[in-house]
Amino acid sequence: MEYLDNLGQKAVAAKYVLQKLTTEEKNRALRAAAAALTDGAERILEANRQDYGTAEANGMSAGLLDRLKLTAQRIHSMAEGLRQIAELEDPVGTVMESFKRPNGLQIDKVRVPMGVIGIIYEARPNVTADAFGLCFKAGNAVILKGGRDAACSNAAITQVIREALAAQDIPADAVQLIEDNDRAVTTAFMKLKQYVDVLIPRGGAGLIRAVVENSTIPVIETGTGNCHIYVDEDADLDKAVPIIINAKTQRIGVCNACESLLIHEKIAEKFLPVLGDALREKKVEMRGDESVRGLIPDALEATQEDYGTEYLDYILSMKTVSSVEEAIVHINRYNTKHSDAILTENEEHAERFLQGVDSACVYVNASTRFTDGFEFGFGAEIGISTQKLHARGPMGLKELTAYKYLIRGNGQIRE
Amino acid sequence: MEYLDNLGQKAVAAKYVLQKLTTEEKNRALRAAAAALTDGAERILEANRQDYGTAEANGMSAGLLDRLKLTAQRIHSMAEGLRQIAELEDPVGTVMESFKRPNGLQIDKVRVPMGVIGIIYEARPNVTADAFGLCFKAGNAVILKGGRDAACSNAAITQVIREALAAQDIPADAVQLIEDNDRAVTTAFMKLKQYVDVLIPRGGAGLIRAVVENSTIPVIETGTGNCHIYVDEDADLDKAVPIIINAKTQRIGVCNACESLLIHEKIAEKFLPVLGDALREKKVEMRGDESVRGLIPDALEATQEDYGTEYLDYILSMKTVSSVEEAIVHINRYNTKHSDAILTENEEHAERFLQGVDSACVYVNASTRFTDGFEFGFGAEIGISTQKLHARGPMGLKELTAYKYLIRGNGQIRE
Repeated sequence: MEYLDNLGQKAVAAKYVLQKLTTEEKNRALRAAAAALTDGAERILEANRQDYGTAEANGMSAGLLDRLKLTAQRIHSMAEGLRQIAELEDPVGTVMESFKRPNGLQIDKVRVPMGVIGIIYEARPNVTADAFGLCFKAGNAVILKGGRDAACSNAAITQVIREALAAQDIPADAVQLIEDNDRAVTTAFMKLKQYVDVLIPRGGAGLIRAVVENSTIPVIETGTGNCHIYVDEDADLDKAVPIIINAKTQRIGVCNACESLLIHEKIAEKFLPVLGDALREKKVEMRGDESVRGLIPDALEATQEDYGTEYLDYILSMKTVSSVEEAIVHINRYNTKHSDAILTENEEHAERFLQGVDSACVYVNASTRFTDGFEFGFGAEIGISTQKLHARGPMGLKELTAYKYLIRGNGQIRE
Repeated sequence: MEYLDNLGQKAVAAKYVLQKLTTEEKNRALRAAAAALTDGAERILEANRQDYGTAEANGMSAGLLDRLKLTAQRIHSMAEGLRQIAELEDPVGTVMESFKRPNGLQIDKVRVPMGVIGIIYEARPNVTADAFGLCFKAGNAVILKGGRDAACSNAAITQVIREALAAQDIPADAVQLIEDNDRAVTTAFMKLKQYVDVLIPRGGAGLIRAVVENSTIPVIETGTGNCHIYVDEDADLDKAVPIIINAKTQRIGVCNACESLLIHEKIAEKFLPVLGDALREKKVEMRGDESVRGLIPDALEATQEDYGTEYLDYILSMKTVSSVEEAIVHINRYNTKHSDAILTENEEHAERFLQGVDSACVYVNASTRFTDGFEFGFGAEIGISTQKLHARGPMGLKELTAYKYLIRGNGQIRE
């Protein structure tokens, strides 16, 4: 498609300029973009009102409408986000390894921008500014494809940022938005391999599946989290209740929320009635196997399907197990390789769990809600990777870079 | 497909055992597999004779027949390769980063096996043992799909290794071979995402394209190399001739061979006639632009298509340019992001080239032929990555691993 081809060529032209910018030049541009967002708030809000009106008329749910809606405060937060990114350390240019070969070749492995990053996301206009900021600070050009329900908002935000960049003598094509919302265009974007180095979907399981199935560009899968907590026979039950309540209910619609609970059978009788009271108070629907239902009479029956479900709701599946090993096997079967925790005071059980569970983040005695770029101290995140290639878990600036080898010789040839 | 589903399940069962093996257990198994290859040489040679006979009857070219053919010496080399892998440092378990958060959470980023690796390759039976050895040492189960012309050889090698592993009480399913050579099975293998963590194609451009287009498993692209050498106006011409001859002719069928030459116009008149003599002596066909042909009368005309072609043959495309910048722009347009070199004594030109060329390996004053796991000191390689995600350039054991975060707390919950 000519439209996408043109976008791709512009992104590539921009990436060669961006990769040469100094940290100070990038930070100045980020601060200028932040100021432009605040200055352009009315223009962005006007566009957002248009999106909101259409979405409301089309019967969008209250939850989605809330995600779509922008306010002066939310625009301020977007601007603040860009300023925070300006404060972060620049990963580009770091020498990761350096070694000299016996033949005299000096080899340096140096962190470089990825190049062109594609982001496909749903109707959350704040992602437009966030994704630009992170990609830009890591020296990348970004091509954005947002949800069609936020089309006007995304276009306004992108336009404001592009104008701010141009005013700083930085290529506006550092950020481009695909404004054609035809589904065929999105699918073609997933195959724009000659221009785009990595494609990151941000959104629900359906979006991610569509990208994985259609993309020829390397993909980083993010954000599906069927997270487990296993309460070991040697758990400190006073710690266990607050951790489980936090992981399940502190924020239900997020990928690091707990969806499934395993309880060692030896402590089930003592623990489950107490936990049941706490969950009931938070209005969490409990779904358990037979032994759980024996101890929590109002728990519903859990099916095999429940164990594999990311509810993103006030629902928790529950099951008793007879050992750490059984817990590990169950978790590795049903989890999404995101975040899982063991609650135990037994160090040996903890180590077996840490080693055995195949997830990006494995916890001992803490809430799974900590799987987050800010909580990890990365300062920001573009998403939580649930695949093993390239990056796993929270992805910060470093994960938006690649590396290259610089090899300096003096006439070496291979024998 | 039930057949593949079964293979996938067995690989996953094996991976959980492999990830717990100690370095010594893995090394012992590698040495046992090496001994088994030598002991089983006659069985493997018999199978290979069958493949060779069929391929010869089907009119396979001499070059491909040579790649297919096994000898006692080649089996010895395969065994030696496994012993060398046993000597390499085990990447698994390394703590890559370790930090404590203000809330007391201790976060360790630890190198772990990737899990299950799929390798799709052509009719080179030695890859069967090599790929097993590298994947195994990094703690991974591997599923192999070799070229159908080497089906009997691959089956014999795999069987010998599996028996050796079983005798060491290690799951034989650490290595499995897809023995159904139906093309539909190979395509289905590329979508075995629920079991396979990464897919690595090893072979020609056609194979790699097919994998990239069909796979839903994350892919690491390897091995296409349209490598350039740029002879700067400040090149030392005495170094330049041997480097170009080495990069072009030392081995023509490999991905790190030089395919295209750029020459600064200021030194063309002095350099090209000398270089032309050297290339002519090596029977390299020269294809140049008008200014090249003016200085090397027997050079043929180079088309745009030539500049984008990986010949893997005694052919070299040639073009004059007027600056380092023009060289960089040309290279970034036509290269495959593999390996490119500048020959210059001018440090500033060298730095601009190192920074500007978008390749896995960028050289100053050395042959591109050094892009190789052994030459880099990795001890072995599974291939040369030409993509930016996860690994770039020569891929050794470390590149066959992932990481996970282990987070140890004491009751932390998120506010």
